[in-house]
Amino acid sequence: MAVLTVGSIALDNIKTQTEEHTGLLGGSASYASVSASFFDRVNLVGIVGSDFPKQHIQLFQERQIDLSGLQIVEGKTFHWAGQYEADMNKRHTLHTELNVFETFTPSLPPSYRGTPIILLGNISPALQIHVLNQIERADFVIADTMDLWITTTRPDLLELLKRIDLLVLNDSEARQLTEDENLVRAGRKILDLGPKYVSIKKGEHGCLLLSRTEFFSCGAYPVEQLKDPTGAGDTFAGGLAGYLASLQKSQITFADLKRATVHGSILASFCVESFSLERLKILSRNELNQRYAFFRAMSHFDE
Amino acid sequence: MAVLTVGSIALDNIKTQTEEHTGLLGGSASYASVSASFFDRVNLVGIVGSDFPKQHIQLFQERQIDLSGLQIVEGKTFHWAGQYEADMNKRHTLHTELNVFETFTPSLPPSYRGTPIILLGNISPALQIHVLNQIERADFVIADTMDLWITTTRPDLLELLKRIDLLVLNDSEARQLTEDENLVRAGRKILDLGPKYVSIKKGEHGCLLLSRTEFFSCGAYPVEQLKDPTGAGDTFAGGLAGYLASLQKSQITFADLKRATVHGSILASFCVESFSLERLKILSRNELNQRYAFFRAMSHFDE
Repeated sequence: MAVLTVGSIALDNIKTQTEEHTGLLGGSASYASVSASFFDRVNLVGIVGSDFPKQHIQLFQERQIDLSGLQIVEGKTFHWAGQYEADMNKRHTLHTELNVFETFTPSLPPSYRGTPIILLGNISPALQIHVLNQIERADFVIADTMDLWITTTRPDLLELLKRIDLLVLNDSEARQLTEDENLVRAGRKILDLGPKYVSIKKGEHGCLLLSRTEFFSCGAYPVEQLKDPTGAGDTFAGGLAGYLASLQKSQITFADLKRATVHGSILASFCVESFSLERLKILSRNELNQRYAFFRAMSHFDE
Repeated sequence: MAVLTVGSIALDNIKTQTEEHTGLLGGSASYASVSASFFDRVNLVGIVGSDFPKQHIQLFQERQIDLSGLQIVEGKTFHWAGQYEADMNKRHTLHTELNVFETFTPSLPPSYRGTPIILLGNISPALQIHVLNQIERADFVIADTMDLWITTTRPDLLELLKRIDLLVLNDSEARQLTEDENLVRAGRKILDLGPKYVSIKKGEHGCLLLSRTEFFSCGAYPVEQLKDPTGAGDTFAGGLAGYLASLQKSQITFADLKRATVHGSILASFCVESFSLERLKILSRNELNQRYAFFRAMSHFDE
């Protein structure tokens, strides 16, 4: 099967307490696509400017990512600059330039319109709906979101939630969306808004997956040297979506989603070990398998 | 086998945002002993005053807890009063009266001195060492601690750490003890101080169990209506210790400790559903089994 990913493609400047890098490949679609590509074919939808480095295009090509849906237009690529505090859960945006992204209203290539697994990466809900409207049929639709859309475009987000299978968001966003401090109750309130499943990411504490009748608590890999958390959430969603695509099933079960959550968490745990996509670029199948075995041992207690 | 528990026995006044109760049975030894009693025989070591209600003694007796080590002396029982904010992770001590606890220097009954599993509940490290010195041989020694002892009696605590198998403490205490924000690194630093294992409790995020070579991430039961978190940590440690005792093994493995951690978490999840020991009093074997099956389903992903 295949997974369609849509989102931003960016050139990032990132500053941590110990390092500073400029012109890094970033954006939700970049992280999600490369992550998903470890499991299945990826149909990328995105936009970049004429300044976008060839080497980044090559990376997508090496990962066998279909670029029919990538627009390259005159102008500058979306740019984001951010800084992390010593506590890397705390991030400040220093600068955002939308550039060519401002006019992004993708028209999907006909070959993309039957993609069975859809990952609507973190872009405005209106744009996510615009993409979803062009899909002829999909087996499973995943959407990511962020605090900005919850605050500024809530009606669009609520419309989107009625049309997706799984919403992925972090703990503070789940609390913000539902105005409930208790994450389990917040998760149930999100299910009442439409999606069949919700995945609440908790950073170093792992994540929760809820359906109306089932519950999964996924731990986080014990990362001791976190280098750069940028893109971890997108990488998580990409790995999850890619794994689902690789199952080649039209009916996704809760058990499938549990394993998909673990695969997403594993990809994210590698992502944060380096800046940008540096770690994912050199990641091997063998390393993924080893970390899957580690996750199994750190989570299973009765066998 | 059996487990020896030592700690405080208290009469608590507790105020939450919605309820207020006075004269509740509390204290680390009360919670830990009743929790452990679901799995095996318990040898309780503690002290109460002449005001201690008969009904609380009866509760211990009904749970088959050996009270040879319980001193009842003239005077008032240890008293604690606390208040919780809307966010129940935030607690304020309103009042503490040590009363008869001030002179507590227990002399263990001879029948207790060979107890194989020892749980040194949350009391001063000097008192924990005093108890440990009276043990002739033990298969496994567990100690709980708190921020107060890390701040005020660190040398005693460091001496204790060299003599125990497992330290149980919460996330903020682990960070305080090691001056490391990263919980995994903090856990490894605690192992360097002596214990073979460390369990770091994270409240609603579950807990981590570490040895030098192994790692377990235990989720938390999704409690939607938290009534009173008092004693959850003591109940966790008691359930863990009681389960280990029930194994009747002189060599405890990491796999044993993983399951013990789950049993402790289950007992704690029931504890917080009511004030004091009200929920544990009426807890059935069948309810424990059901929640164990739930923990299995929420943690295992590959079978």
